Amino acid sequence: MANENILVIGGGPTGLEASRGIAELGYKAILVEKRDKLGGTPISAGYAALTPDMRNAGDAMAEMAAEVENNPNVEIMLNSEVIASEGEPGNFRVKVKSGNDEKEINVGAVIVASGFSHFDPGRETQKYGYYEHDDVITIVDAEKLLKAGMFVRPSTGEKPKRVAFIQCVGSRDRQIGNEYCSKVCCGITSKQAIEVRELLPGCKVFIFYIDMRMYGYWENEIYWPAQEKHKVNYIKGMATEIIKKGDSLIVKGEDTTMRRPMEIPMDMVILAVGMEPSEGTKQLADIFGVTKNKFGFIETTGGALNTVSTNVEGVFAAGACTGPADLEDCVSAAGSAAMKSIATIRRVAITA
Amino acid sequence: MANENILVIGGGPTGLEASRGIAELGYKAILVEKRDKLGGTPISAGYAALTPDMRNAGDAMAEMAAEVENNPNVEIMLNSEVIASEGEPGNFRVKVKSGNDEKEINVGAVIVASGFSHFDPGRETQKYGYYEHDDVITIVDAEKLLKAGMFVRPSTGEKPKRVAFIQCVGSRDRQIGNEYCSKVCCGITSKQAIEVRELLPGCKVFIFYIDMRMYGYWENEIYWPAQEKHKVNYIKGMATEIIKKGDSLIVKGEDTTMRRPMEIPMDMVILAVGMEPSEGTKQLADIFGVTKNKFGFIETTGGALNTVSTNVEGVFAAGACTGPADLEDCVSAAGSAAMKSIATIRRVAITA
Repeated sequence: MANENILVIGGGPTGLEASRGIAELGYKAILVEKRDKLGGTPISAGYAALTPDMRNAGDAMAEMAAEVENNPNVEIMLNSEVIASEGEPGNFRVKVKSGNDEKEINVGAVIVASGFSHFDPGRETQKYGYYEHDDVITIVDAEKLLKAGMFVRPSTGEKPKRVAFIQCVGSRDRQIGNEYCSKVCCGITSKQAIEVRELLPGCKVFIFYIDMRMYGYWENEIYWPAQEKHKVNYIKGMATEIIKKGDSLIVKGEDTTMRRPMEIPMDMVILAVGMEPSEGTKQLADIFGVTKNKFGFIETTGGALNTVSTNVEGVFAAGACTGPADLEDCVSAAGSAAMKSIATIRRVAITA
Repeated sequence: MANENILVIGGGPTGLEASRGIAELGYKAILVEKRDKLGGTPISAGYAALTPDMRNAGDAMAEMAAEVENNPNVEIMLNSEVIASEGEPGNFRVKVKSGNDEKEINVGAVIVASGFSHFDPGRETQKYGYYEHDDVITIVDAEKLLKAGMFVRPSTGEKPKRVAFIQCVGSRDRQIGNEYCSKVCCGITSKQAIEVRELLPGCKVFIFYIDMRMYGYWENEIYWPAQEKHKVNYIKGMATEIIKKGDSLIVKGEDTTMRRPMEIPMDMVILAVGMEPSEGTKQLADIFGVTKNKFGFIETTGGALNTVSTNVEGVFAAGACTGPADLEDCVSAAGSAAMKSIATIRRVAITA
């Protein structure tokens, strides 16, 4: 007989939305999260506000987590990791490790929602001096400062007067193998630029970019207010090097609009690091026999008209484990995966 | 007692996916489409190939339509329009007009998937001479030529030697009130540029753009191949005027990278027109009492973490009727709307 429970792996926005969907449709979700709490990267990385609506990230994720925690149709396993799986739709036998305990659970379908990792700017983009200069940070570090309401230079603890964001660090970069665009960094950067300007009205903020990918409503919701209301300076040009000079950082590069070399002093530089597949995502792909694309993200196989099916029937993938994704992408795909995983179980039950 | 049927309005990719999802979960979908066939804009506008996977649009939509047509849980009403609605979740009474017949149907929830309209470049962007010059066409017109495999100048029937695409026509334009970015035009243009180069290897293709919004995998799947394999010329700069000179069109504007005025002769100019809310979408919003945003699209009310709920409980909106959306956005949101509409019905049934 087909097992009607559905395993959801990952307790971030995607996994929470999928679990809630499954539960609200009267099926049981077993939610496995490797960390000790729900909320995913917005919580573990300490995000300040969501993009684009600037809602407090902690509040938003706490609300999603509570809806799942309070739903009797969701069983939550924290500090737990999937380590093996065998079987087929309607009857997957999955080994889950929680601390020293191992447990086999039986489920009819699986949704992988294991998210992404932030690109490490020290690895192959040393020209930016992330591990060399205290005042070179990432947009992930910046979220923590913004969340604390203390946007100061790490080197001195003083408020910066000039801040530069550098886009596409670890993205659109063939040399390091990340040819894709990470999709969300332009939006997150512009959101942070607004937050910096609100916290520190005297601080000048610059964004060095190749193309500003403020698609859809991000254009009118973030990009135009950032430029016009908050006076953020957008400069088309890429930084090629960051060096330290006295108390300042010098951003070197080319301003491609002005067509001239630039050397601009800054107090802080913020690297807009992109998305990469997490180690957990790669491991899960191997455990379930799911194809990865050349970047290591899980490959969905339905083209433009199916965002969650994989090459393994009954195993779905949703959100940033399949590639760069914004929050809307994640929750929409989560709903789609909830729907399709139940459809699979029903199909197996009928034909069994 | 709560009615468990769900009304889906619109038979394009979003409505088809939502209907299939509802049916596969054992509920009944009533699919209302105003045209005489299913498939939505990809069919009615005669798209050649989908973006980004270049799958034949006719084949893809026929497959989606067949799955819905063959599902006994979907009732399809063609040549039909919703003209009135009253009621509440679990009990909406909706008036549908089919030709001269009017019928009241009872449903528990509603999914609006009424899509978008293409911006009319004759309306307020006369500088491009769309209605003046035969060889100025839109990306919608270009799809039809590409579908026919006959990419020729409308004025002469001859193969063009120089073709220019102009981005952001009707988008990112405060003067005409469309401040948003239409999201998909950069991708569709680059896809068409590849198709033109494949059909006519001797033809030079130029794309004039502000920012190339090739987010996520569109970067590596379309943008880089277009530039490197297919030798499409991307020029950062906007055309300000198109005039006719002898047998040619002259594109006037500024090349912002080279920082100089440009006057470039072309055989054909293709305007990348954006998305606008359709008249049908605006009417449906009024019929169901759903809030529109300032552009006339249906407003979803859940911020970044809910892409389909509206201000009216039990009435959902998915896909391009809520704003600029690519196909992935549409089918993911459709799945999410299917899930949430059933969840609503179950909630009403339990509390009733």
